[in-house]
Amino acid sequence: MSVLLEMSMFPTDHGESKSEYVAQVIKVIRDSGYPYQLTPMATIIETDKMSEAMAVAQKCYEVLEDLECNRVYATLKFDIRKGKKNRLKGKVASVEKHIGEVAK
Amino acid sequence: MSVLLEMSMFPTDHGESKSEYVAQVIKVIRDSGYPYQLTPMATIIETDKMSEAMAVAQKCYEVLEDLECNRVYATLKFDIRKGKKNRLKGKVASVEKHIGEVAK
Amino acid sequence: MSVLLEMSMFPTDHGESKSEYVAQVIKVIRDSGYPYQLTPMATIIETDKMSEAMAVAQKCYEVLEDLECNRVYATLKFDIRKGKKNRLKGKVASVEKHIGEVAK
Amino acid sequence: MSVLLEMSMFPTDHGESKSEYVAQVIKVIRDSGYPYQLTPMATIIETDKMSEAMAVAQKCYEVLEDLECNRVYATLKFDIRKGKKNRLKGKVASVEKHIGEVAK
Repeated sequence: MSVLLEMSMFPTDHGESKSEYVAQVIKVIRDSGYPYQLTPMATIIETDKMSEAMAVAQKCYEVLEDLECNRVYATLKFDIRKGKKNRLKGKVASVEKHIGEVAK
Repeated sequence: MSVLLEMSMFPTDHGESKSEYVAQVIKVIRDSGYPYQLTPMATIIETDKMSEAMAVAQKCYEVLEDLECNRVYATLKFDIRKGKKNRLKGKVASVEKHIGEVAK
Repeated sequence: MSVLLEMSMFPTDHGESKSEYVAQVIKVIRDSGYPYQLTPMATIIETDKMSEAMAVAQKCYEVLEDLECNRVYATLKFDIRKGKKNRLKGKVASVEKHIGEVAK
Repeated sequence: MSVLLEMSMFPTDHGESKSEYVAQVIKVIRDSGYPYQLTPMATIIETDKMSEAMAVAQKCYEVLEDLECNRVYATLKFDIRKGKKNRLKGKVASVEKHIGEVAK
């Protein structure tokens, strides 16, 4: 099974720039050891089980809570598919099979 | 603390109509005992802790997995705020304080 | 055709409480004349065409821009289905057909 | 102004694999001429105006409509910020300033 989780999480009570907080969230994800990719709008991680992906999201929130964030907003998208692996690379590749090279 | 989770979850490998599957997901949420509201696009639940909301989402997925869903898509939005309660009713009410009655 | 758009839009550079800004966004939606429903996490509108729903979202942003919002975050979910009408009421009803009454 | 739009759009009435349809959507985005990045979960484009990003999303839907998709689901996230440019590269770079290199 392949669980892809695309997540963005940030405080909404701390002014216009969020990169300081977002960076701490990304650090949690990087330290989790799961394959991941940072994009300009979210971080995508791939796990074998939904519970593993959720545990990472939970830890990300706890970091923001510790940083005195009073209000946190998060959007998570899951694409869960049985009998598949390595979709962090594979999904983009299968689009390229249809239409050739894309920016990635 | 008040955790609002807006969730939509459905299989993408089972044809155009989803209400049969969505209904089973809603049943899990209703049975969880947390305050919730079903909308045309999602279900919103309110819990005291993020981990409680996540456990419900996990159970929803497991129901779809048991129903032979091979591919599941889910979008979750969290709005987590310390020092607040009863925002399932309260958020709409605080908008109405500014602009009067709205459709809800 | 039925276009359901679930939208949440808010400034992220204006402190913890957003209801003042969100209220102005809802006002635009209410004034648009399309059927809509305000939930604790988003507003859902139903239109006949995708372009109509998008025009409403665009107007919502313009109101926030006029209110000196420097950074705006928005999440939009579309569920577009041909040959259907009145899904703002219909979708919840078709879930209830399967599992009985739900909180709405 | 910099408008970042993260979009995923796919039919939900056409079986488990979506890459054939998703590929046609990406083609529209690539042909639009705006800077974009394809990720495993979405495509991100950057425009100067919200209306430009919306016009691309509209075209993407029209392509799916022409491909006989009866039901289409789309999630869009906007991050709109005044007085900024080139955030498709800049946002990831500003996270790296805080915590060093990340997978991207």
